[in-house]
Amino acid sequence: MVSRQAEARRERTCALIVVGNEILSGKVRDTNAYFAVRELRGIGVALKRIVVVADELKTIAEEVRHCAARFEIVITSGGVGPTHDDVTVEAVADAFGRELVTDPQLQRIVDRHFPARAEAVRLKMALVPQGAVLNVGGEIAYPVVQLENVYMLPGIPQLFEDKLRALKDRFATDPYFMRAMYVNAAESTIAGQLSACLERFPDLMLGSYPTIGDAQYRVKVTLESKDRAYVDAAFDHLIGLMPEGAVVKTE
Amino acid sequence: MVSRQAEARRERTCALIVVGNEILSGKVRDTNAYFAVRELRGIGVALKRIVVVADELKTIAEEVRHCAARFEIVITSGGVGPTHDDVTVEAVADAFGRELVTDPQLQRIVDRHFPARAEAVRLKMALVPQGAVLNVGGEIAYPVVQLENVYMLPGIPQLFEDKLRALKDRFATDPYFMRAMYVNAAESTIAGQLSACLERFPDLMLGSYPTIGDAQYRVKVTLESKDRAYVDAAFDHLIGLMPEGAVVKTE
Repeated sequence: MVSRQAEARRERTCALIVVGNEILSGKVRDTNAYFAVRELRGIGVALKRIVVVADELKTIAEEVRHCAARFEIVITSGGVGPTHDDVTVEAVADAFGRELVTDPQLQRIVDRHFPARAEAVRLKMALVPQGAVLNVGGEIAYPVVQLENVYMLPGIPQLFEDKLRALKDRFATDPYFMRAMYVNAAESTIAGQLSACLERFPDLMLGSYPTIGDAQYRVKVTLESKDRAYVDAAFDHLIGLMPEGAVVKTE
Repeated sequence: MVSRQAEARRERTCALIVVGNEILSGKVRDTNAYFAVRELRGIGVALKRIVVVADELKTIAEEVRHCAARFEIVITSGGVGPTHDDVTVEAVADAFGRELVTDPQLQRIVDRHFPARAEAVRLKMALVPQGAVLNVGGEIAYPVVQLENVYMLPGIPQLFEDKLRALKDRFATDPYFMRAMYVNAAESTIAGQLSACLERFPDLMLGSYPTIGDAQYRVKVTLESKDRAYVDAAFDHLIGLMPEGAVVKTE
């Protein structure tokens, strides 16, 4: 596959850490990652890494430390519930070397939202890493806890999606523009043309995706940039390089 | 969520590294991870980590190094094609500090499978890390290159699935047995019962998965073990601990 990142252009980077033994064991199929991919793409945030890890404090902490140092935004999914094996908040604290402390504002919100829950449960739910920020306001009724560049979202898909939608404005930059062509030739046949296009348009993000068993085409080629005119120019250039009749469809 | 790993019992561990800008950017929805989850589970291999990384040599190498040192089996998906940005084989070599060399047996197979491809392409496809093994025989016509405990599979779903099915016998140990109960009570209400069950059956893998918007139940509880009698005994014990009428369905 051919692809190249437009390093020169400003874009925010993001990593997603999905905490979930239930996903690793196949009891639940993750949908949060694919949802996040599309939502983030739509606001011009480049998702660079997705990791699914087990519900183990040290494993989560290690991954949070790794991602927080490399990406501008880190989103975690899952492990923020009331049971003793929900360890994401503690793991994020551990990753930054912070203590867990009770947040008085969060305690009031927890008590108001979950009056029927046992006191021990409510006390646990109000614990945050020292220095954490609560994301509230707008469409967010129950807060998203944030420490530095790490946002801790719930794993239940409906809640994850609601929270991510509500946070999107805080992450947004400018969107990508994409065009695509479907080519009825082997990837190895058109590799030279793709490379030539990249040489002419070095900031282009160019992808080629071979398919099998599709009667219409053999490779989908995608061209992306945050500059619409740039991607249009590259598209026209590449079309001109392709073998006669090879491009069967464009988008 | 409550869950606990049966550390005392022997099980093979596995990590999956999915190489794919196209997945991170949402152009393609990954299906290989979910396929691998179920296949590996069926043969008793514990998948402990799934990572989706960009097509960057250093990033892939770093992840391969991390996983190869921690898990018994590492599977990579994608980045093994003929274009210059297919860098998985080179990244695996880099992870182990090996040179890339031409494998004469692989060169013969490549030349036979892809006679129409350019010579430069065929030469690249026969490069492997020094010391690599070719997995051939059985249902595998075109080989899977293996270095140490790392198996490099193609990313195209149909090929990935064929290869993984063919390799399964080499990975197999013994399967897990699972039972499940659907409970119409809040997770916080039954957290004590779940903990009590784990104290009595410490080797049990116990999971609780809250749902929203299902009229029938609020939490799915799963019990797993490689020992069928053990999981049955734990299941009966937990049923006895549950509030009257709370369990609405069992599997």
